[in-house]
Amino acid sequence: MSNEHQIWVLTIGCNDRPGIVHAVSGACVAADGNIVECQQFSSEDSGRFFMRLTLDTVLDRAGIEAALAPVVEDLDASWELDLVSRPTRTLVLASKAGHCLNDLLFRQRSGHLNIEIPRVLANHPDLGGLAGFYGIDFEDHAVTPETKPAFEARILELVDEFDIELVVLARYMQILSPGLCEALSGRAINIHHSFLPGFKGANPYRQAHNRGVKLIGATAHFVTSDLDEGPIIEQNVVRVDHSQSVTQLTSIGQDEESRTLTEAVKLFAERRVFLDGHRTIIFR
Amino acid sequence: MSNEHQIWVLTIGCNDRPGIVHAVSGACVAADGNIVECQQFSSEDSGRFFMRLTLDTVLDRAGIEAALAPVVEDLDASWELDLVSRPTRTLVLASKAGHCLNDLLFRQRSGHLNIEIPRVLANHPDLGGLAGFYGIDFEDHAVTPETKPAFEARILELVDEFDIELVVLARYMQILSPGLCEALSGRAINIHHSFLPGFKGANPYRQAHNRGVKLIGATAHFVTSDLDEGPIIEQNVVRVDHSQSVTQLTSIGQDEESRTLTEAVKLFAERRVFLDGHRTIIFR
Amino acid sequence: MSNEHQIWVLTIGCNDRPGIVHAVSGACVAADGNIVECQQFSSEDSGRFFMRLTLDTVLDRAGIEAALAPVVEDLDASWELDLVSRPTRTLVLASKAGHCLNDLLFRQRSGHLNIEIPRVLANHPDLGGLAGFYGIDFEDHAVTPETKPAFEARILELVDEFDIELVVLARYMQILSPGLCEALSGRAINIHHSFLPGFKGANPYRQAHNRGVKLIGATAHFVTSDLDEGPIIEQNVVRVDHSQSVTQLTSIGQDEESRTLTEAVKLFAERRVFLDGHRTIIFR
Amino acid sequence: MSNEHQIWVLTIGCNDRPGIVHAVSGACVAADGNIVECQQFSSEDSGRFFMRLTLDTVLDRAGIEAALAPVVEDLDASWELDLVSRPTRTLVLASKAGHCLNDLLFRQRSGHLNIEIPRVLANHPDLGGLAGFYGIDFEDHAVTPETKPAFEARILELVDEFDIELVVLARYMQILSPGLCEALSGRAINIHHSFLPGFKGANPYRQAHNRGVKLIGATAHFVTSDLDEGPIIEQNVVRVDHSQSVTQLTSIGQDEESRTLTEAVKLFAERRVFLDGHRTIIFR
Repeated sequence: MSNEHQIWVLTIGCNDRPGIVHAVSGACVAADGNIVECQQFSSEDSGRFFMRLTLDTVLDRAGIEAALAPVVEDLDASWELDLVSRPTRTLVLASKAGHCLNDLLFRQRSGHLNIEIPRVLANHPDLGGLAGFYGIDFEDHAVTPETKPAFEARILELVDEFDIELVVLARYMQILSPGLCEALSGRAINIHHSFLPGFKGANPYRQAHNRGVKLIGATAHFVTSDLDEGPIIEQNVVRVDHSQSVTQLTSIGQDEESRTLTEAVKLFAERRVFLDGHRTIIFR
Repeated sequence: MSNEHQIWVLTIGCNDRPGIVHAVSGACVAADGNIVECQQFSSEDSGRFFMRLTLDTVLDRAGIEAALAPVVEDLDASWELDLVSRPTRTLVLASKAGHCLNDLLFRQRSGHLNIEIPRVLANHPDLGGLAGFYGIDFEDHAVTPETKPAFEARILELVDEFDIELVVLARYMQILSPGLCEALSGRAINIHHSFLPGFKGANPYRQAHNRGVKLIGATAHFVTSDLDEGPIIEQNVVRVDHSQSVTQLTSIGQDEESRTLTEAVKLFAERRVFLDGHRTIIFR
Repeated sequence: MSNEHQIWVLTIGCNDRPGIVHAVSGACVAADGNIVECQQFSSEDSGRFFMRLTLDTVLDRAGIEAALAPVVEDLDASWELDLVSRPTRTLVLASKAGHCLNDLLFRQRSGHLNIEIPRVLANHPDLGGLAGFYGIDFEDHAVTPETKPAFEARILELVDEFDIELVVLARYMQILSPGLCEALSGRAINIHHSFLPGFKGANPYRQAHNRGVKLIGATAHFVTSDLDEGPIIEQNVVRVDHSQSVTQLTSIGQDEESRTLTEAVKLFAERRVFLDGHRTIIFR
Repeated sequence: MSNEHQIWVLTIGCNDRPGIVHAVSGACVAADGNIVECQQFSSEDSGRFFMRLTLDTVLDRAGIEAALAPVVEDLDASWELDLVSRPTRTLVLASKAGHCLNDLLFRQRSGHLNIEIPRVLANHPDLGGLAGFYGIDFEDHAVTPETKPAFEARILELVDEFDIELVVLARYMQILSPGLCEALSGRAINIHHSFLPGFKGANPYRQAHNRGVKLIGATAHFVTSDLDEGPIIEQNVVRVDHSQSVTQLTSIGQDEESRTLTEAVKLFAERRVFLDGHRTIIFR
């Protein structure tokens, strides 16, 4: 027992059946805890049950786990337990465009985004100054067809070295190899500059202009080997009209890109994002 | 036991303390029920705890209540239990403008709004045809300073006669007397045609035009004797610009008024609205 | 000269070149008119110039046309001139779902949508009562593979008989034949229940659920033989989450469908919609 | 004649009367110019006419002014003519919170906001590093009741020294004296962290929480001596719910504050903002 109150976040996924809430809340009582927030969802699509709760208790991790063990074993649940206050270890991949990186770093320093970023890895040197201003280590290597395998290997090295929980592609603009997508499955978030599933692939603002849409948007999604088809975490749109050129759409869209990516990272860092097959469950 | 599965909605409000979720979910297990949805909130402002859950069980009301009784007594909770499928008995007050009434009636008939409307009571005859088309009884009496007490007495008579749970002021345009506000406390919803707390009182679109706002809105709120100050249930806004006259603002705003009121009525009918002092807790 | 002031709307499209605004405004001066509103746009995509203005004058049509003639001839412009107050003759095609028709009829009767509807033509009888309540002639014929040609011929008969300017597919749910699409080119508006170009084709809410999008939408577009690919006039979206079933998405989406279609019809009726190749120019 | 094409922006305000568009467009023809964009508005409230157009011509300033002179004199118009490419000289006032300043500086450097900032003047030193990173001169002085007059005098000195066209209060948090408000009339923009006219004054997020609103917002407005009552330039809102604390509302609202202020500054810098009495006319 730590003798002081701390807030823990517990996330659980298991097959749905009657009595789960009672069982889990019983373990919380056994852990001398008070449930502060609690959300759950039963997916009709998959038959899976998802739960996120925050727990106020004086017990330490071992004490809470001991209380939970019989319940989660009985449910055959996958689960995670962590202190709410612990920042999520995040590796950011970047290229030349700085708006997403700028937003992430500013929000992080302002205390509104609970992540720590041991390194920004880029394929261009342009954003080194921005990272440096925020005191973040920055590393860049050119990516060519020849060097791409080495760059991707470096990503995995850094993931390993810093025990990275989340990789954020902040307008990184390179397609990850299928192997890397697989290795980072469920823990890499990309921002695509369109309202998916519209305008997959390259130049979405050009596509949006040509199609004459009245709203443009941005989509944050998990990276999968199926390009721009990964599970969607967050989306936003903004109204545009015929008078706006592709260049103007690109400028307008940047606000949506950065806010959408930052929100998705925030949701992930707060353990609010669950995967249910190809869909996400988001407990806001 | 009814021998067939039915879905019940249970709402609870009580002082917050550890173990409530476990206690209530235990009662659900005792009621042979599976929790389908469950939401709760602990208010730091008031120290109150609020919970809404839906329960799938073959027990009848008496059976569920027997399972719940010891828990809700111990919690000293206020609570309600009802079949999800039972429509909320609703009295609609109207005047001349039909957009809100039209939306309510269309949505109700379409099966998207689970209310039954035994009567529309109006201070003008204009909307009798619309009510009639939907097969709803319509009654109108002119309201003057002299007849207002009689009209308000008639409201209470109808509330009594039809065991009304919700009174909806669908652009009724008359200020209810303090006594009536008190009598209908927590069960009368008004739509105000501005984004409160901006532009209280008369002619909000005129006020909005004069102030030059860039968004206009609508607010659905509980009726209190403090005009336009009741607890807010739902709000929406829409973008406008300098070129729009008061008449155009009025036309544009009608969409927001009707969708906002209908949404508030839907939330209430689904027992998703709780009062926490002067604020509402809404479980969507 | 009619001796009384009237407001006319003039729309012009021509190849762009210097001096057009001066030339057209000169014709307005020659027509003794005061320009009340005026909007123009030069399309870089097509090199076309588009203009919409409203003119306050005491001249009658012949007088205005005489003043305009030399200018529009010199510009080799396509143009239309009409009284702002004249309602657009509109044929509505419907099926079983009434939310779009209901919104169009209510808005039209309320004076917020300047169209006249000489007939609603449907492939099911369900909405006859609704049309009847609004005093609109209603005609229905079942559409089968065998009867479809006759039904489409009937559409063209009605277009001819009532000198129809706009055909509105208010959730008509049938695909028009290429020949009919061609015949109604630029004057038939459909509502598709997704945010195009996402989720073309059937069951867009099912598709949206499966893809796990966080916003659903509706798109009003001109009908072309290329299904769901016609020029977009208006789009709206609304936020949804994982907890909403396909049925709920369908219910939520109806508001967006009806408001989006009504807005597109309003823009068309006010002569605010221009075609620039495959894109629309919208003067709001 | 400069022999090369340049784009100029011309803004005009005058009393409304027939023939203005023709007269002004005639002057544009006389200036050998092609009108690229053109917007105008006749205010029924004030009887004033407003116009903004961009002109492509090879003439220099003197040449264009010579062509315009007879027209604007005849109209007794107030007018401004400038190169579209010339950045607006902007003084930014700041305090401790950096989100608005960060957004302005990032957007400016990215080429999406056509302003130059010769100085950031603050009442706290905290944001010196941020300004420095963007290569902007930074100056700070504590503001106390005693030093406030000196600080305000310093503002006017800088306005004078750098020929400042726009003063931006980027969460400056100090109330300007009536004299300074007067001196900066029509060229000082403030961001208020609420959807005005709701929640004027201090702690708007606290007020919003207490009132239980369902949307919070931000308002960019011209500074006047009547606190939070100046003409509104831009507003945005974002949806919130009961579960969000004042701290969370504050965090959520920051995105709206910075995007709203940046947008207002952009509109002003592009000469799209006109004052019509207490309202703004915005040509987007």
